[in-house]
Amino acid sequence: MSRNDYPALAEKFEAYLSAHQPFGSPDSLYAPVRYINDLGGKRIRPVLLLMAYNLWHDDVTRALPAALGIEYFHNFTLMHDDIMDEAPLRRGKTTVHSLFGRNSAILSGDAMLIRSFDLLLEAGKQSDLGAELTSLMCRISLEICEGQQLDMDFELLDSPTESAYLEMIRKKTAVLLGGSLKMGAMMADASSTAQLALYQFGEMMGLGFQILDDCLDVFGEVEATGKQQGGDILRGKKNFLYVYTCNVLNPSERKHFAQTYHHAGISGDIKPVLEIYSSLQVEAYARKLQTTYINQSLDQLNSIPDIDTSRLKNLALQLNSRKK
Amino acid sequence: MSRNDYPALAEKFEAYLSAHQPFGSPDSLYAPVRYINDLGGKRIRPVLLLMAYNLWHDDVTRALPAALGIEYFHNFTLMHDDIMDEAPLRRGKTTVHSLFGRNSAILSGDAMLIRSFDLLLEAGKQSDLGAELTSLMCRISLEICEGQQLDMDFELLDSPTESAYLEMIRKKTAVLLGGSLKMGAMMADASSTAQLALYQFGEMMGLGFQILDDCLDVFGEVEATGKQQGGDILRGKKNFLYVYTCNVLNPSERKHFAQTYHHAGISGDIKPVLEIYSSLQVEAYARKLQTTYINQSLDQLNSIPDIDTSRLKNLALQLNSRKK
Repeated sequence: MSRNDYPALAEKFEAYLSAHQPFGSPDSLYAPVRYINDLGGKRIRPVLLLMAYNLWHDDVTRALPAALGIEYFHNFTLMHDDIMDEAPLRRGKTTVHSLFGRNSAILSGDAMLIRSFDLLLEAGKQSDLGAELTSLMCRISLEICEGQQLDMDFELLDSPTESAYLEMIRKKTAVLLGGSLKMGAMMADASSTAQLALYQFGEMMGLGFQILDDCLDVFGEVEATGKQQGGDILRGKKNFLYVYTCNVLNPSERKHFAQTYHHAGISGDIKPVLEIYSSLQVEAYARKLQTTYINQSLDQLNSIPDIDTSRLKNLALQLNSRKK
Repeated sequence: MSRNDYPALAEKFEAYLSAHQPFGSPDSLYAPVRYINDLGGKRIRPVLLLMAYNLWHDDVTRALPAALGIEYFHNFTLMHDDIMDEAPLRRGKTTVHSLFGRNSAILSGDAMLIRSFDLLLEAGKQSDLGAELTSLMCRISLEICEGQQLDMDFELLDSPTESAYLEMIRKKTAVLLGGSLKMGAMMADASSTAQLALYQFGEMMGLGFQILDDCLDVFGEVEATGKQQGGDILRGKKNFLYVYTCNVLNPSERKHFAQTYHHAGISGDIKPVLEIYSSLQVEAYARKLQTTYINQSLDQLNSIPDIDTSRLKNLALQLNSRKK
């Protein structure tokens, strides 16, 4: 049996991506695409697709074009999100719009979105799955747009509800993880039960993943994360911890907390925010919710008992106990 | 036989568009979509699709979702192009990015692009054409991105060649007209000869259309166009007339012309540019090329002799003899 653990699949994907970098005329449209493709990252979405496919087939070669389509889609969202957030850096490197200009980032992002659909159509050709794969991609990608818009809208609100926040991260982050796994299962011709189980496994894992992300920002050890502690607080970003806190406070306490949060961003001193989090046991609540999601996520895999899903289980556990 | 001339088809399309305006959560994502859909316009692309379908089928109802998909795609390009051009007005109304903000225009534009694919998939469902329609749309829409990038790149060049300019307008404008017609023919289950003929008819008509557009800007009668004479000159836009002129002049004359063109934009006096155009008979050349394209376009229709294409012929002639 071929070695198909995460690093091996990531390596295969990386080689495929490299061999399929786009060239065309004018090069000014395609250079930003190659640039963002080359920025690296964990390639988690394409690898999830390959892992799902690999549950039924040893040789993942046939699933590589779809995996590339998913990565193109993800990189399109990064390119456009970075413009909207006016982010100067992505993975420690200059963002596309900072390097090539805003117009290029808009247009090359559009081209990546289009190409992602094209790759899924190509991927589905042999098995007549093109329309099904792109149709799923349409649903997911519209949800992702909705999630991004909700995220922007939330920045203008005092405090979204906890359920609205969770719905936002479900759309913005989780559906693409679920969708990647489902596409892998579709390519593998898996049953609709298995497809659904993998989708929900990915979606719930994604919710847990994002809540952990918000926790690590504040409670992670700087030596492990390599990031400044409380980056979200300093940027005034309303993450899960902020939203939960607002939701458990009464209106006057909430007002005081919002002011404290805002002030931390100006003074650079996050301690007063940490004290409020500590008094309300915010971390414990967030960790408990994260655990609930990860357990629900693992439960989904029980719907496909005839298949060895241990690699996916381990990945979910690893991702949800990571320190950075 | 039902009345299916241009105004009747445009009216049917308008009603369908109105009845299918998008609503969803958050509304902030969909309001800009409804806004640009409501801006009106000639609806030329969806009507071309319906006209092509109508060559074989009296009742165009079944082709309406695909026509809507094409209009969504076109409006997506307008939304993003207007950001790139920093245009304050579109069809006399405030542009999306000016009214809703740049981030909304980026994101709602993305949503329109996605929805256009979704509509084509829906349109193709009954006849199993979803993958074919979206695949064609991918090819066309990537070419349109390339055309837009070429257009932006040309603004930084002294003078693109005439053939490079024609390739740019082919990609930026003409392929979508050809594609709309081809999709109508595909939906109508027409032969591949007929599909190709309609595609090429549309593409060549589009080239003629754009050259005429550039001519009207300078040589049109202000009473007819309702626009300021020489808008392209005043904005420093390098249109066909500019490119042709540069190409027939020697390097030192070209330098002088470029300076004259630039200076007209500053002084607001376009007369010196008009004098150069007149001395080189630029209008006559452009009109001749336009006529060549329109004739080549009409020739294409001879490949489908068994079908009455007189409405398309008349439309092409009308569009290419318009005064505004």
